[in-house]
Amino acid sequence: MQETLSYWLGQVGIAAFAITAVLAVLPKGVDIFGATILGMLTALGGGTLRDIVLGVPVFWATDATYLLVSALAAALAFFAKDLFGRRGVHRSMLYLDGLGVAMFAILAMGKTWHLEFGRPASPIILGVVTAVGGGLIRDTLANRRNLLMTSHDLYLTPVLFGCGCFGVVLRFFPDQESWGALFSMAVIFTIRSLAIHFSWSVPSFLVARRSLNDEGE
Amino acid sequence: MQETLSYWLGQVGIAAFAITAVLAVLPKGVDIFGATILGMLTALGGGTLRDIVLGVPVFWATDATYLLVSALAAALAFFAKDLFGRRGVHRSMLYLDGLGVAMFAILAMGKTWHLEFGRPASPIILGVVTAVGGGLIRDTLANRRNLLMTSHDLYLTPVLFGCGCFGVVLRFFPDQESWGALFSMAVIFTIRSLAIHFSWSVPSFLVARRSLNDEGE
Amino acid sequence: MQETLSYWLGQVGIAAFAITAVLAVLPKGVDIFGATILGMLTALGGGTLRDIVLGVPVFWATDATYLLVSALAAALAFFAKDLFGRRGVHRSMLYLDGLGVAMFAILAMGKTWHLEFGRPASPIILGVVTAVGGGLIRDTLANRRNLLMTSHDLYLTPVLFGCGCFGVVLRFFPDQESWGALFSMAVIFTIRSLAIHFSWSVPSFLVARRSLNDEGE
Repeated sequence: MQETLSYWLGQVGIAAFAITAVLAVLPKGVDIFGATILGMLTALGGGTLRDIVLGVPVFWATDATYLLVSALAAALAFFAKDLFGRRGVHRSMLYLDGLGVAMFAILAMGKTWHLEFGRPASPIILGVVTAVGGGLIRDTLANRRNLLMTSHDLYLTPVLFGCGCFGVVLRFFPDQESWGALFSMAVIFTIRSLAIHFSWSVPSFLVARRSLNDEGE
Repeated sequence: MQETLSYWLGQVGIAAFAITAVLAVLPKGVDIFGATILGMLTALGGGTLRDIVLGVPVFWATDATYLLVSALAAALAFFAKDLFGRRGVHRSMLYLDGLGVAMFAILAMGKTWHLEFGRPASPIILGVVTAVGGGLIRDTLANRRNLLMTSHDLYLTPVLFGCGCFGVVLRFFPDQESWGALFSMAVIFTIRSLAIHFSWSVPSFLVARRSLNDEGE
Repeated sequence: MQETLSYWLGQVGIAAFAITAVLAVLPKGVDIFGATILGMLTALGGGTLRDIVLGVPVFWATDATYLLVSALAAALAFFAKDLFGRRGVHRSMLYLDGLGVAMFAILAMGKTWHLEFGRPASPIILGVVTAVGGGLIRDTLANRRNLLMTSHDLYLTPVLFGCGCFGVVLRFFPDQESWGALFSMAVIFTIRSLAIHFSWSVPSFLVARRSLNDEGE
């Protein structure tokens, strides 16, 4: 039952990733085919990178549901852009995206941990890569400033914080893994939600001043 | 015999990929070394991504001909840019590139299908990735608008259409695989050639209007 | 002893990669978290690509020292940017980066050669990918012009030259592998150092004139 719930919540997260990706690139004048492929790469990219680094079969190879859900969600977002572009709906998608990020980061950490892959540091890295890798691919292909290069939006920080929490749980309280996972997801989702709601950004003492000469090479 | 023909046609496609890549980045002021590496990454990138996702050895590991052909073709394009830049020759290269895309998409689908890798959706995805992955790497490294983000050129659509055709053949008419492969390649190459000849673009009802504020973040 | 020396020199190279990456992106206004992840991706990216293509476990999976060294070096560069930004210190980092590039290119070639992976061309390609892959990832994520697209700085050429040297050694003088490796590293480091010191760039007859219409599509 818990498995099933987590599986379908995961599909909701995949759909939210695809939808927010399409909404992000629509103003650049894409067509339905490019938008769908980009939505799929965004939704599935992080987990694909994780599985490639782990050396295990990619997660969508054995379950085409992921491919279908991400393709349909992306196409839907393209055609129903007026609906999804409405402030309330777009905002809901950001929260669902936050839920997806929280789930995928923590589930990826658990998967990596149980493969005994480079404990304890590697699971944290792969949790982060799974959560933000798709977004990095999207922003690279769409030529947008990515989340590593901007401090206007608090996206990476909650993921790092939650993965750190779950790392402590896995290392020192392995018996509490299930609760620790839920708690760590809640940490990520809560901070991310507050950041969306209050437009939080990274505190300025942790941000380098942008130089006047932006190219700076 | 058929194997040999397909092998050498493949090398012609690889060379065309490398040449069109170098011609595309030459106006940006590259040198011979950067141009050659970029040409090789473009020509070999899509198939490399496919093999990594499939978890099989990359195709150029066991046959250095691919490396040599792509390197020589890229270097040739650099030095003979006046020749390759001539309208007729450049245009021939676009058609050869289209032939390469058609072959690699369909051959990759066949390879993935026979590995029983995530039928039926994954072979289509990997066919598309093989065909356009190198071009995405090229445009990313050269900071050009890539084919997912533009609808001026009909490049992705014929690939999707032909891969869809071959998916139907593999699923419902497995006995006709050879003919189906040839037919699907012909579908891709024909649509792509018509698109080059008539400067076709994606029909406007399938394209999102580009917003005035292009950055749109 | 030799192993240990090479191991710790490697860590110094990793740290230099992370530091120069952070210094390169600081003018763009990053925060500490983004800068650290970007520094890690730069420092570890090339070797990770190599291991993925080789189909072996990534090098940082079994030794978290790489993760810690790159993370700490990146965070240090962020906070001590005034120190590292000083001309003398920044310049020292460029030399250490050159040392890192020299070591990683040649060590990667040796590793690939002994796996009997696509001799003799593939080891050269993977040596180059290991040395410059991290920098390509950095420049892509930071939206900077990368080393393939610029001829102002002599970075790729010494790597290609040194890898070519080591290829000749491995192929024709396999008994001299240790000395040949040191010699090839010295070749890369020397040319790179001279290029830093004298601001060498690629000779103009090997560079395509940049067209007035830079976009050229």
